[in-house]
Amino acid sequence: MIEVPVSDKKCDAVVAYQGVPGSFSFEAAENYFVGSAELVSFQSFALAMTSVVDQEAAYGVFPVENSSTGTISEVYDLLLKERSLSICGELTLPIKHCLLALPGADLAMLREVRSHPQGLLQCKEYLMSHNLRGIPGMNTAICAAEIAQLGDLSIGAVASRAAAKAYGLKVLAQDINDITHNATRFIIVSATPGPGGKKTSVVFHLSHQPGSLYNSLGCFAARGVDLLRIESRPLRERPFEYSFIVDVAGDAKNQPLAAALDDLSSHVSYVRILGSYDPI
Amino acid sequence: MIEVPVSDKKCDAVVAYQGVPGSFSFEAAENYFVGSAELVSFQSFALAMTSVVDQEAAYGVFPVENSSTGTISEVYDLLLKERSLSICGELTLPIKHCLLALPGADLAMLREVRSHPQGLLQCKEYLMSHNLRGIPGMNTAICAAEIAQLGDLSIGAVASRAAAKAYGLKVLAQDINDITHNATRFIIVSATPGPGGKKTSVVFHLSHQPGSLYNSLGCFAARGVDLLRIESRPLRERPFEYSFIVDVAGDAKNQPLAAALDDLSSHVSYVRILGSYDPI
Repeated sequence: MIEVPVSDKKCDAVVAYQGVPGSFSFEAAENYFVGSAELVSFQSFALAMTSVVDQEAAYGVFPVENSSTGTISEVYDLLLKERSLSICGELTLPIKHCLLALPGADLAMLREVRSHPQGLLQCKEYLMSHNLRGIPGMNTAICAAEIAQLGDLSIGAVASRAAAKAYGLKVLAQDINDITHNATRFIIVSATPGPGGKKTSVVFHLSHQPGSLYNSLGCFAARGVDLLRIESRPLRERPFEYSFIVDVAGDAKNQPLAAALDDLSSHVSYVRILGSYDPI
Repeated sequence: MIEVPVSDKKCDAVVAYQGVPGSFSFEAAENYFVGSAELVSFQSFALAMTSVVDQEAAYGVFPVENSSTGTISEVYDLLLKERSLSICGELTLPIKHCLLALPGADLAMLREVRSHPQGLLQCKEYLMSHNLRGIPGMNTAICAAEIAQLGDLSIGAVASRAAAKAYGLKVLAQDINDITHNATRFIIVSATPGPGGKKTSVVFHLSHQPGSLYNSLGCFAARGVDLLRIESRPLRERPFEYSFIVDVAGDAKNQPLAAALDDLSSHVSYVRILGSYDPI
């Protein structure tokens, strides 16, 4: 688990996330904003994002990419719509599933284990080898909350360590994922731009013609700016244009990136700097 | 729904997919291979892919990208490992959720509706407005199979039209998704290269240094080859190299793409043509 001290300002802030206490977004928010941040849960990414736009929350924590399931497009789509927001931080959280049960339970008592289908699939080998029947639920943390409320010593949940803490459950086993390299990248967004950092995310639109991406990437290459990630997305409302989300090394305020972005703006039909920040 | 006539050879083939009859992968396979293809279900993407490698199945149908949830990285990871396979086709399937129930049921009788959590979330407004309680299940098609077996007129499922057909259920309402623009792109893979087509997928590895992507894309740009999609992926086992999956216009056997790919091979540490095919 990555724990990172942050500024006092951040510690007292209201932080929005999608899900319930004990979800992986909650865990990411708790790890990023150590201290006394007030974590506020929302039912959807859209509602959590709106609370940041309206400045009811100072920050929002959103998953954007999982190492096995890929990019979470919905979060990027929402962020691209909300032009007042910027990315001010990033945290990569290892997804470590735990087997949780009531405080009085032990492994021999368990018969049934609840989790999101994805959680059950990711721990299939462990559950099979311990003869535990998987029962699907809405999400990992909701399942943890449910078993805490049911009070049945034979029913467990597959969820995070944070869920155990949130609902007073016991961790019977940890890291029970079949695949160990499972991590989710979260971005921290705010209506107030952050202090900057060594990584910058940029979105730009290009008309769909041969060489247009090549020419725009030339703005970075010519200045030795390192490209960390690129993803293209078709623009639903404009069929002949493409949107690119690019992560590059450096702060948008500093050279050589500042000049590269300036140059880029003359090559593309739309450009927006999503933010400069330090990934942790 | 897109229905496409294909060759006789394809119609008689064994086709592997992940999931159960009535799942969206099943529906994609059924739509692509109209006729008498034998669709064989597998519990995981890995097992389905292995059956194509071993040529027990002539084709495999795999989801690679959903318009709201993004890229399905696991499928690309498996495909990149299996060097004997190539992409020979592509189908984009609109994801249309239906409300299914037993033949004797009507909307007024329903109290409870089962589906994968994602299916319940995507139809939340419809379910709420009809006072239907959502109960999570492992996947949409398994829920349809369950309610067919239960025989309770008050229990329905959110699943595909193909699931209704597979389990003898009635479609009480169709297109009940809150978001209507929901589609999944599937690739068709085979151990036998396909006849080619107007789109080509290529994967290549680059050392992590400024300008390396720019230089490699120059191979396409210089020849007017249109870039349709690009995605970067970190190489887990080689921390300073990146993998890029690129879709370009044209057939790898024809000019100008053949020359561009030849040129590309001298700019990169690894290149593999995944296949040329016609998207439908």
